[in-house]
Amino acid sequence: MHVMIDLCVIPLGVGVSVSTYVAECERVIERAGLQSQLHPYGTVIEGDWEPVMAVVKQCHERIHEMGAPRVFTTIKIGTRTDREQHMQDKIDSVTRKRTRE
Amino acid sequence: MHVMIDLCVIPLGVGVSVSTYVAECERVIERAGLQSQLHPYGTVIEGDWEPVMAVVKQCHERIHEMGAPRVFTTIKIGTRTDREQHMQDKIDSVTRKRTRE
Amino acid sequence: MHVMIDLCVIPLGVGVSVSTYVAECERVIERAGLQSQLHPYGTVIEGDWEPVMAVVKQCHERIHEMGAPRVFTTIKIGTRTDREQHMQDKIDSVTRKRTRE
Amino acid sequence: MHVMIDLCVIPLGVGVSVSTYVAECERVIERAGLQSQLHPYGTVIEGDWEPVMAVVKQCHERIHEMGAPRVFTTIKIGTRTDREQHMQDKIDSVTRKRTRE
Repeated sequence: MHVMIDLCVIPLGVGVSVSTYVAECERVIERAGLQSQLHPYGTVIEGDWEPVMAVVKQCHERIHEMGAPRVFTTIKIGTRTDREQHMQDKIDSVTRKRTRE
Repeated sequence: MHVMIDLCVIPLGVGVSVSTYVAECERVIERAGLQSQLHPYGTVIEGDWEPVMAVVKQCHERIHEMGAPRVFTTIKIGTRTDREQHMQDKIDSVTRKRTRE
Repeated sequence: MHVMIDLCVIPLGVGVSVSTYVAECERVIERAGLQSQLHPYGTVIEGDWEPVMAVVKQCHERIHEMGAPRVFTTIKIGTRTDREQHMQDKIDSVTRKRTRE
Repeated sequence: MHVMIDLCVIPLGVGVSVSTYVAECERVIERAGLQSQLHPYGTVIEGDWEPVMAVVKQCHERIHEMGAPRVFTTIKIGTRTDREQHMQDKIDSVTRKRTRE
């Protein structure tokens, strides 16, 4: 099952700056060889369900190893059976309709 | 790794009423033998990472089987290494502090 | 416009325990006279759009006043024009279908 | 109070394709003169609390006017008092740390 997720990981108990932890998550995603796109509030990742969800778990594990006692994550998950859709398709689909005012 | 998630599954392309699909997710969770609590905007589930996340996947699979071409899910995930915390502990912790005004 | 939201407020930069801040949000909601229901991952609030959203802003303001330099909130918002639906209706609707296996 | 939100609006009861509605939300944001960035799972918007939240309400109103009986939205909201931070700052902050392996 192909899945596209939006991942936002927040370590708690490590102060105000979270970018060091987000950068580590980016490395985890990259090592997994998954397609992804960083945006100001998270990272969109796509691929098969298992490797994508494995990455989410690894992010939690890595952030705990880095010293955060608590990790809070929000994820949006999208699956569809009617057709294949990739990250850029979603953007293109909106952009086309937006300009066709 | 113990995890507590808040799961909100929304089928798209099947009309306005989603309760039939949410009820099916409740059965999936129950069959998995996981502790859970239904609230007006989702279901809180706790347990080990793997069985909890397996339930999320099964919910997507079941809802597609029931005819929804698209499933959109939002999840909050919490893990902590400092101490064990269960669903009721979170409620109690807030309630105690609220009354101690 | 009637709205039902699921509010989850997380202060950053104040350590691991967030229940003191959540308890303060509960007081803000109560003072606003809005119907609400606390669950392990947030609080469901319903009412007219303006007072409900005013509460969200007040929660951010109060938590900053209490010393948190950063506040991260996730909200789900639901509105519908086909019929009125309240918190308990959503729960009842799922529970009815679940038992009718 | 400056705020940065991540907005993801989903109309229910209008079929599988939601891009027409998302495109309309993009127009609402543009007309409001707010800085924003579209990504595959939503739109990041920043500005003062009131105009930003007014846009969220207008998106719900417009989508109902366009015929959707039900609208489900997820928002992440971030405020901070320690320093100003804009959309690109968040991206830059992660990117800098990621390359500094």
